[in-house]
Amino acid sequence: MLFSFSWSNVFIFELELPHSSMDAEHKFGVRKLEILDKSKGFIELLQQLTICDSVSDKEFEEHFQEISSYGDDHLICVIEDDRSGKIIATGSVFIEKKFLRNCGKVGHIEDVVVDSAARGMQLGKKIIEFLTDHAHSMGCYKVILDCSLENKAFYEKCGYKQKEVQMVKYFI
Amino acid sequence: MLFSFSWSNVFIFELELPHSSMDAEHKFGVRKLEILDKSKGFIELLQQLTICDSVSDKEFEEHFQEISSYGDDHLICVIEDDRSGKIIATGSVFIEKKFLRNCGKVGHIEDVVVDSAARGMQLGKKIIEFLTDHAHSMGCYKVILDCSLENKAFYEKCGYKQKEVQMVKYFI
Repeated sequence: MLFSFSWSNVFIFELELPHSSMDAEHKFGVRKLEILDKSKGFIELLQQLTICDSVSDKEFEEHFQEISSYGDDHLICVIEDDRSGKIIATGSVFIEKKFLRNCGKVGHIEDVVVDSAARGMQLGKKIIEFLTDHAHSMGCYKVILDCSLENKAFYEKCGYKQKEVQMVKYFI
Repeated sequence: MLFSFSWSNVFIFELELPHSSMDAEHKFGVRKLEILDKSKGFIELLQQLTICDSVSDKEFEEHFQEISSYGDDHLICVIEDDRSGKIIATGSVFIEKKFLRNCGKVGHIEDVVVDSAARGMQLGKKIIEFLTDHAHSMGCYKVILDCSLENKAFYEKCGYKQKEVQMVKYFI
């Protein structure tokens, strides 16, 4: 994992230096995940975040269709470097329906990662803004996410505030 | 809010004293939310947790059907006091589908509340165990939730550990 970036490294967002191998002026648009993104390194990008075994084309397609069946209630977005054809950033948001807040909705942001080779271009901020805007457009009264303490400053720059603590129980 | 209990008060779970108005030996079973639970004080119970405007029968039914369409991927459970006919505890869990962890699943626990008049009977623990077991049975590799620091000790007793911090952005 020597050269990989995981989201627990906040320094990626603090660096604003021009990137050595990419044109800093290049515009990187955010778009929804497409089924062909598996061949563009989407799974390998997730492997920089946490454990992510290789997924067969069939498994990917089935899982892609399952998530797609939720429509705008579960959005995975990506940034593709159209020069290399590689997916270099991703994140997801899903919309929870509550009875609280007059049957309100909450957006949950998950699995945000930027390629270790694409630092210093504020791609993480672009991803968060895209997902936050989506949650807003879906009528959510708030959007939440969990992050390490080291990443707190980055999310504060994105307009987020710390509220509670995350508790977890693993089954494996 | 003088007599209401919100989930931010952890002391409810620490108290093991026999309850004054309910038989401590009485068995309180956990079951799925049913459409008739609106008339049994379900919305009023949520109002003890946070802002929850009154909901019309039509709104409740539509929202109930919408959440039910997710099947076991979004479960709301309740405990009914069959002597008073009132809903006295509730919580929810929804299942997130990821590409990570070999297309793994994560359970998200939300909106757990115990009636202020039903303290000291470990109903919160029953709710958490029910939701945790559901996430496990659905094949989740972990289950997560966000809570206040004061509630951390309660969740540790339920087998949870603190991992990250929760960040939030409100739109209203």
